Amino acid sequence: MGTRPAEVVRDGASESPVRTGAVDAQLGDYFDRAEAQAAAISPEYIRLWRGLRASTAGGKRLRPALVLAAYRGFGGTDDAAAAARIGAAFELLHTALVIHDDVIDRDFRRRGVPNIAGVYRDSAQDQGLAAPAAEHRGQSAAIIAGDLALSGAFRLVAAAELPAPLRLRLLELLDEAVFASAGGELLDIEFPTMSPPPALRDVLQMSLLKTAVYSFELPLRAGALLAGAGEPAADLLGGVGRLMGTAYQLVDDLLGTFGDEQVTGKSAAGDLAEAKYTPLLAYASNCPEWPRIRALLAGAPGTREVALIRRLLESCGARAYVEDLAESYAARARDRLAAAGLPAGLRTDLVDLLEQAVRRSR
Amino acid sequence: MGTRPAEVVRDGASESPVRTGAVDAQLGDYFDRAEAQAAAISPEYIRLWRGLRASTAGGKRLRPALVLAAYRGFGGTDDAAAAARIGAAFELLHTALVIHDDVIDRDFRRRGVPNIAGVYRDSAQDQGLAAPAAEHRGQSAAIIAGDLALSGAFRLVAAAELPAPLRLRLLELLDEAVFASAGGELLDIEFPTMSPPPALRDVLQMSLLKTAVYSFELPLRAGALLAGAGEPAADLLGGVGRLMGTAYQLVDDLLGTFGDEQVTGKSAAGDLAEAKYTPLLAYASNCPEWPRIRALLAGAPGTREVALIRRLLESCGARAYVEDLAESYAARARDRLAAAGLPAGLRTDLVDLLEQAVRRSR
Repeated sequence: MGTRPAEVVRDGASESPVRTGAVDAQLGDYFDRAEAQAAAISPEYIRLWRGLRASTAGGKRLRPALVLAAYRGFGGTDDAAAAARIGAAFELLHTALVIHDDVIDRDFRRRGVPNIAGVYRDSAQDQGLAAPAAEHRGQSAAIIAGDLALSGAFRLVAAAELPAPLRLRLLELLDEAVFASAGGELLDIEFPTMSPPPALRDVLQMSLLKTAVYSFELPLRAGALLAGAGEPAADLLGGVGRLMGTAYQLVDDLLGTFGDEQVTGKSAAGDLAEAKYTPLLAYASNCPEWPRIRALLAGAPGTREVALIRRLLESCGARAYVEDLAESYAARARDRLAAAGLPAGLRTDLVDLLEQAVRRSR
Repeated sequence: MGTRPAEVVRDGASESPVRTGAVDAQLGDYFDRAEAQAAAISPEYIRLWRGLRASTAGGKRLRPALVLAAYRGFGGTDDAAAAARIGAAFELLHTALVIHDDVIDRDFRRRGVPNIAGVYRDSAQDQGLAAPAAEHRGQSAAIIAGDLALSGAFRLVAAAELPAPLRLRLLELLDEAVFASAGGELLDIEFPTMSPPPALRDVLQMSLLKTAVYSFELPLRAGALLAGAGEPAADLLGGVGRLMGTAYQLVDDLLGTFGDEQVTGKSAAGDLAEAKYTPLLAYASNCPEWPRIRALLAGAPGTREVALIRRLLESCGARAYVEDLAESYAARARDRLAAAGLPAGLRTDLVDLLEQAVRRSR
């Protein structure tokens, strides 16, 4: 590969060979244009757009990297516009879903800094609003910003210079990904109060829907279609994406419970404080430790209780089980990649991206 | 006109000659398909889709009626698919914006019954969640449902059987309408704490952005373009739509403050309890009564205080001023319609729709 320019995907210490600089350029154009239009409305609106731009900065550009990997791997050569634009659209989709997910999870920080809800909450407090009103103001701004990003995703795909049937197919896939994510998000919020509690199988389905479809299946399918590889190849990569995405989300669940706050940039209590029903809890619900874990979770656990729950999740085997499960999904993805007769460069790139997804620490 | 079938637009006692039954059929197909797909995921997801379907029911179908009026008025004759589908898309956009607006306004009822946030809040309370957690659950479900409706709007336009350039133009207009609405919504939430308070001019701009663009300008423009009337005709109708929409929103502000709760289906305290900065307050801010009104608004006004604020808004002339302002926007819209040399049937239909918009009681 030779030199590795700054715009390659970075993830902790590892790097991907897939350059996403053209995607950043597309996003930059998109935000420049929106800010110019917002300037005709009000300074407040410029500020919201700048907040939205900041929400897309500093990310791993995982979804665009997957689009580009599939596109180039299947021989796509149009380095300029369309694939980068589709990658940018999916990054906006990711931003929209993350912003709304943070409202739903009552998170006011992401990657170690205030997210858009946090920024607006803090400035409302500076204006003299009491804490609950300021939080609501922050969440309201975030709802609006997420709607803009979601529309932007559709806009970027709709305006891509592509044959009309392909553009339509990509818009369909985008809508299907929103459909899946919304279904997963809904289950995610309903699981904690479901009776009987959901089975591990249901929790894995939720993860698949909420994250894997839009983060892995959609970009890989889209990249294959953009390169003209056809629907069967897109289906193949889509299936690999589901496996990769499930492995990715399981690692995310492990980081959300056992990760180092300094590294993940997320609150340490994280998933446990929100009593999110992850596969860790689904496994633990069949352990003798469960009544104790459940009681601790129900009592708005603080730092000490969270540490105790972590130890109980380790002693009951939940941590090891989920680590093994993540590895088994990754292995299935690797096996399918190896067996599929894909172009060698594509296989290598996807295995690299898979390793990043499961070896990451944030 | 002869018989008036059940699917005409109804608004209080008056009726429009524009039939929107084909729009309801498009929405019905859309929800049937989504529910079938949700069934593959979980019963909870079917329930969310049924809630979303219910959120679109019982509305005035104002936006589809405007699309169809402009489309048929300019000679569009394809009674079947495209115009009705675009009307259905704009109805979904309306649903999305209303659902998210209700979250932002902390409203749990609409049209006299629980809205989607209210339905989910109530069932979370039945499951034993405390009030704040149950409200958050309701709002979370509403955020998800609004995202689905917003995606659905783009999906329906993207899949309309239209020449590709026209479809792209409509997708652009849809995105521009979301851009305007989001800008208006942001100003709406920021106005109450702005210092100095916003001028009447700014409040009118906010109304224009938040409501008039997507509710009037967008449908009229789209209908003209669908009929092949060209961009100048679309611009003309778009301008009329801005005037109509501003008149409409001013009437909405009057109903939100002085309306009969039994008729509007909205909470009586409404805008005053939320301290929304409407043109009524912008006018009143220059009256001797203002310090008293402001103090009452700041103190979380109950029924008695709301009644007092209403009397003060009447005695200071704010009510009469806003009523006159609504009438003057309606008159400008009528004048422009009369002067524009539009087809006679279109002019009549739009004047009818305008009268409904300003004479309504809910």
